[in-house]
Amino acid sequence: MTDSPHKNGTTRRGFLAGTAVAGAAAITGTVARADAPDPAITEVQPWARYLGEGVDARPYGTPSEHEAHVVRRNVEWLTADPISSVNFTPIHELDGIITPNGLCFERHHGGIAEIDPAQYRLMINGLVDRELIFTLEDLMRFPRENRAYFLECAANSGMEWRGAQLNGCQYTHGMIHNVMYTGVRLRTLLEEAGVQPEGEWLLAEGADASAMTRSIPMEKALDDCMVAFKMNGEALRPEQGYPVRLVVPGWEGNMWVKWLRRLEVGDQPWHHREETSKYTDLFADGRARRFTWEMDAKSIITSPSPQKPISHGPGPMVLTGLAWSGRGTIPRVDVTIDGGINWHEARMDGPSWDKSLHRFYYDFEWDGSPMIIQSRAHDSTGYVQPTKDELREVRGENSIYHNNGIQTYAVAADGSVENVEIA
Amino acid sequence: MTDSPHKNGTTRRGFLAGTAVAGAAAITGTVARADAPDPAITEVQPWARYLGEGVDARPYGTPSEHEAHVVRRNVEWLTADPISSVNFTPIHELDGIITPNGLCFERHHGGIAEIDPAQYRLMINGLVDRELIFTLEDLMRFPRENRAYFLECAANSGMEWRGAQLNGCQYTHGMIHNVMYTGVRLRTLLEEAGVQPEGEWLLAEGADASAMTRSIPMEKALDDCMVAFKMNGEALRPEQGYPVRLVVPGWEGNMWVKWLRRLEVGDQPWHHREETSKYTDLFADGRARRFTWEMDAKSIITSPSPQKPISHGPGPMVLTGLAWSGRGTIPRVDVTIDGGINWHEARMDGPSWDKSLHRFYYDFEWDGSPMIIQSRAHDSTGYVQPTKDELREVRGENSIYHNNGIQTYAVAADGSVENVEIA
Repeated sequence: MTDSPHKNGTTRRGFLAGTAVAGAAAITGTVARADAPDPAITEVQPWARYLGEGVDARPYGTPSEHEAHVVRRNVEWLTADPISSVNFTPIHELDGIITPNGLCFERHHGGIAEIDPAQYRLMINGLVDRELIFTLEDLMRFPRENRAYFLECAANSGMEWRGAQLNGCQYTHGMIHNVMYTGVRLRTLLEEAGVQPEGEWLLAEGADASAMTRSIPMEKALDDCMVAFKMNGEALRPEQGYPVRLVVPGWEGNMWVKWLRRLEVGDQPWHHREETSKYTDLFADGRARRFTWEMDAKSIITSPSPQKPISHGPGPMVLTGLAWSGRGTIPRVDVTIDGGINWHEARMDGPSWDKSLHRFYYDFEWDGSPMIIQSRAHDSTGYVQPTKDELREVRGENSIYHNNGIQTYAVAADGSVENVEIA
Repeated sequence: MTDSPHKNGTTRRGFLAGTAVAGAAAITGTVARADAPDPAITEVQPWARYLGEGVDARPYGTPSEHEAHVVRRNVEWLTADPISSVNFTPIHELDGIITPNGLCFERHHGGIAEIDPAQYRLMINGLVDRELIFTLEDLMRFPRENRAYFLECAANSGMEWRGAQLNGCQYTHGMIHNVMYTGVRLRTLLEEAGVQPEGEWLLAEGADASAMTRSIPMEKALDDCMVAFKMNGEALRPEQGYPVRLVVPGWEGNMWVKWLRRLEVGDQPWHHREETSKYTDLFADGRARRFTWEMDAKSIITSPSPQKPISHGPGPMVLTGLAWSGRGTIPRVDVTIDGGINWHEARMDGPSWDKSLHRFYYDFEWDGSPMIIQSRAHDSTGYVQPTKDELREVRGENSIYHNNGIQTYAVAADGSVENVEIA
């Protein structure tokens, strides 16, 4: 499952010790160094000798062919077919906190609805003073806002409940993305319709063939939810709900109804299929947890990781990963490289926004020996990410959803990395 | 030049007045409304009837086919060939502050260098204690940071010096993008090499066939410059310098050397071709302005605009645009809809970062009459964006570069928009 091209790569020279240039020869690129001739320096490379493609070549750009391995991946045996299925964001190959639109993981219940925006309508009905229907353009006449939020599938890391099963954070933790949305506050539209006093719940319904539906308490709907039509600056992608999706910050991904066509106001939850027989966790005694909306604080080391082994020798290295919480920000992440004997506070870098991914780094000198590495997130409410065993003690092992336990990687002396569990 | 598909569109019903649903018929979608049957509501749409594509269809996603008009565009008559040329970001179709990687404008001097990352090397030479050569992986072993910055070509709006010439902000203001970079602080690499006391200048050189070179004062190099390898989370795109580019926050785009291969430390500027015969402005008397690095505060209304006319009738509407400054943040943008008789403070929304794009909105009731619209940026240093005439008075009309004058649009009663100048 390792798709990293760097698996067996090594740095050609020592690091920090110098990589010093031997005289001016290598600088001009005309004379090879006697001790270690490096064609990458001594020869003029083709890209410096010939003109490249012009500005008319790609009206909409694509990644370098050398990055062809950086793609969303699905797992064939995971679902009966690829229509009602999932693929995973290659978080091991990304950095920072923004997920590029082409790499945002997908989860469909009836495949990608390809909606003609001219035929798009959004209806608000039920316990409202005025039932309303909006065109896409109608929505764009309301005041807009821009906010970045993570979207995590409730089933992210679900296969890890019973032990380390999949080798690669793309597969164990890649049902997440983080996008800057532009849209209208849901509250604005609901105020336009006039929610009646007994309207304490909202049903959001999708226009795809599965007519995905979820019940949302009115308090959340009036808080920070958005009706979004742009992601990272451009129109939503078809697989993310084009032309309009619901954004339910911090809550499980299936509530962020894509291809949003209807919002019904009611006085109680609907208990539809996707919030009862699906997306529900069972305790060990068979009782179901009810309303598990908020995503708990979680973190994952993305590099080194099984798909992104260490490809250099001992010395300075960067360990990095992502952390998030459905309840706020992440002021702190701890990292261990010795299986939890010593914990080090990681360096957070980049924007720290409510219910958004956070990037952490741990810069250290690797002595070249095997390591057991873990990360542990603390969120702004004081909550600390639990171990998997602590989770199992409370929830049993029937669950698929809401596994936010600490992940453990074993790093070998050759830099390869394996997903493991330690007692 | 109008490529908006909404040019002649109108909203089907009155807005805010209600768009009210006539009874339950339209809700079920089975019975047409007697007064105004809308097939988009009364008929079950194809995307709700058939399963769509699965999660294995697009490992790297692309926009909806309905967004095919949202692309970078070049202007054939502008340059002798498309190799040493430019294309433009469709800023009229975007929102928020992030530019998606596929839509970041391109400017090449020798076409797109297609570099094999395994053969990539970065050399630091000149007045340093240790001349160094880094592989791409070497660079990734230094501590990283994540920062969003705008990149604007010095020639952005250049054709407007002598009057309103191009009809569309994509063409007049689209040589700009705003990206979240991940990389190493340039200062970190220079400290590794050890800059000698007389090393007051830095030459940055590209690995493309034009070997693009620019001189940068050491003070700036040690301040906020970055050696970046990721943009908006993923690897740099080939046309943006893959695998490594220089980031020179707030300064003109040609200094952000792409395909960065060499950094030479010297004691004076090099006065190479691209900083003398090119990228230099002449005053009316023929004298040249020297070292025009910083980009002045500027703003542009992106909607409504010539390519994005108003496609609805009178009533509530959103006017929006972008503002930026090479010297800091944008705390305030003013908007006028009557050619400058009255100015209104716009609503800023989204992150306000140093040397990054800012998004502004002006939400108002349009009475349906013609408008003369303008925006005016104030930056955090107190600088206010000038009129074009104020600029011409100081600089004459020989310039191509650094036109940050206020842009004016005439909006007709039918919603169409034209680029104009007013006295």
